Amino acid sequence: MSSIKNTRILDVLNGIPVDKTPVWIMRQAGRYLPEYKKTRAEAGSFLDLCKSPELASEVTIQPIRRFDLDAAIIFSDILTIPDAMGLELKFEDNRGPYFDNPLNNNDEVSVLNDKNIDALEYVAEAIIHTKEKLNNEVPLIGFSGSPWTLSTYMVEGSATKEFRKVRSIVFNNPDMLNMLTKKLVESISKYLIMQAKAGADVLMIFDSWGGLLNTDNYINFSLNPMKQIINNLRNDKITKNKPIILFTKGGGIWLNQISKSGCNAIGLDWTINISAARKIVGENISLQGNLDPCALHGSDESIKQAASKILDDYGFGHRHIFNLGHGIDQYVNPDNLKILINHVKEYSKKFHKN
Amino acid sequence: MSSIKNTRILDVLNGIPVDKTPVWIMRQAGRYLPEYKKTRAEAGSFLDLCKSPELASEVTIQPIRRFDLDAAIIFSDILTIPDAMGLELKFEDNRGPYFDNPLNNNDEVSVLNDKNIDALEYVAEAIIHTKEKLNNEVPLIGFSGSPWTLSTYMVEGSATKEFRKVRSIVFNNPDMLNMLTKKLVESISKYLIMQAKAGADVLMIFDSWGGLLNTDNYINFSLNPMKQIINNLRNDKITKNKPIILFTKGGGIWLNQISKSGCNAIGLDWTINISAARKIVGENISLQGNLDPCALHGSDESIKQAASKILDDYGFGHRHIFNLGHGIDQYVNPDNLKILINHVKEYSKKFHKN
Repeated sequence: MSSIKNTRILDVLNGIPVDKTPVWIMRQAGRYLPEYKKTRAEAGSFLDLCKSPELASEVTIQPIRRFDLDAAIIFSDILTIPDAMGLELKFEDNRGPYFDNPLNNNDEVSVLNDKNIDALEYVAEAIIHTKEKLNNEVPLIGFSGSPWTLSTYMVEGSATKEFRKVRSIVFNNPDMLNMLTKKLVESISKYLIMQAKAGADVLMIFDSWGGLLNTDNYINFSLNPMKQIINNLRNDKITKNKPIILFTKGGGIWLNQISKSGCNAIGLDWTINISAARKIVGENISLQGNLDPCALHGSDESIKQAASKILDDYGFGHRHIFNLGHGIDQYVNPDNLKILINHVKEYSKKFHKN
Repeated sequence: MSSIKNTRILDVLNGIPVDKTPVWIMRQAGRYLPEYKKTRAEAGSFLDLCKSPELASEVTIQPIRRFDLDAAIIFSDILTIPDAMGLELKFEDNRGPYFDNPLNNNDEVSVLNDKNIDALEYVAEAIIHTKEKLNNEVPLIGFSGSPWTLSTYMVEGSATKEFRKVRSIVFNNPDMLNMLTKKLVESISKYLIMQAKAGADVLMIFDSWGGLLNTDNYINFSLNPMKQIINNLRNDKITKNKPIILFTKGGGIWLNQISKSGCNAIGLDWTINISAARKIVGENISLQGNLDPCALHGSDESIKQAASKILDDYGFGHRHIFNLGHGIDQYVNPDNLKILINHVKEYSKKFHKN
């Protein structure tokens, strides 16, 4: 069915050998790119950019034009779902996205609308536009935040220093979180199916804040809901065979449990050694990561060295997608990213010989 | 030599069975206590409080008066060392401690004074005062920040959102960090010896930010320097036999390596399951932790349940010091802490029967 030319990432996700380690970069469409800033300025606000299929698809393919990347990822924000559920998303440049009226109690959760995925049609349209522009050169990744990660923002209002409000609700009102989680599992499942229907070739779930929880609560409020989403995707004919990547930042201690979630690949942050991670998860799952984004602020040589270290540690390159361990930051010089990507492509060849 | 009456924590640290699981609480002398706030107001600034042996010893024993705790920890701040080294520590109530002139380059590191531990004599005096007031009821814990954690503050100026400056220097100027680390190992070793000489019965190293690093850099910039400090302490006649607790927040993935550092106990944050931690580190080391501090915002029942869960998971209570997985926050109701402590004391008895 797929006539995508560069199938490296799809192959890795399906356990098929490739000629060199594929690369994409979390937040690859973003503020470190001058062309992104230009489009962003044209769009008006950040939200206008997210909601314009034409401009969102434009910024999605900007990094593909500039770098030798093996996938695009649709430009959007994980907080579009809470927005569609009725928490009005706001954005200020010096603050990032936030909600004016974060959730405080069960009543406020009960009125949230988890049937309103049509409100996110603009993301589907952006995917359709992007697929046209990509012209089957590389696959397109669709994504969502995890239920727990969306819960944290919906309860806190924005990314806070310690996330104390939501972490306390875990203990003093778990029912509220269970209710919210249930609605989010429903919405996220539909949202990812919608993205696949529009053309997304791979689906990724970002669990940015799973690492805030203790093990029991991680299983209960983050991993199990993600598993439910994966089950929902496996039971839908559109998403049944779509590769799924699951990324919990700070999830190094739970890799064994994550590897049994039904996902095709696990995103690693930069803290865990990739070889140690491979030993924990076994051979039947792919790994994505795991360079510290701050390595991109080093010299050309130190960037290459840091990337080589990960490839060397990993050894035989099978089932590895190179990426950062978190999103690229706005202060990175794009030339440094080019050095990284080209180096990974060249250096990894030796690990893919039969 | 020691005529301390309550030896539970010392016993646990030395692998000796006790009658119930001992408890102390990270940041137990602090803003959640009204009596602390009162003394703090009398002192003037936070730094005045740290630097007054009389008042620092007073706030140190306040929680001992109020709760059934098994140890006191000297009231101080981890940033006293950088202050003594020449980076002037400042403090504003709405900001926390900070340095006006954080470190940018090798030259600024080279002029730091690592011989100036005498400037911290006020901490030794506070320990002497505290020991008098404690009257041998419970042991006193002395402490320092880890070299890496102090480096982060000295480079960033204060706790920042992503610690991008210091994380970048790890890659673009490791020499600067190595030079700084060397000076800090020297200062911290002397500082801890000074504290032991003044009467500290246990020494703890707080590595609040080790979890920011990738595995190689954690070993290089955080764990190995802490090992050097432990070696220095083992080679000094005053600290040779003092129990040492090492706590890396976010260090769950490195417990095996930490367990080989020579410390007597490992502090666990709240993310890792304590039973999983025990399996990783083996039987010959003690564990301290690991309740999520936010559990203290729950109902009486949920607090007890969360504590019981940890004790149940751990099972046989040998070699466990109950504590939070991070410092208690200023918004906790002291009555909730009392419920926790009393519950741990009562509930843990069954795990200590022979």
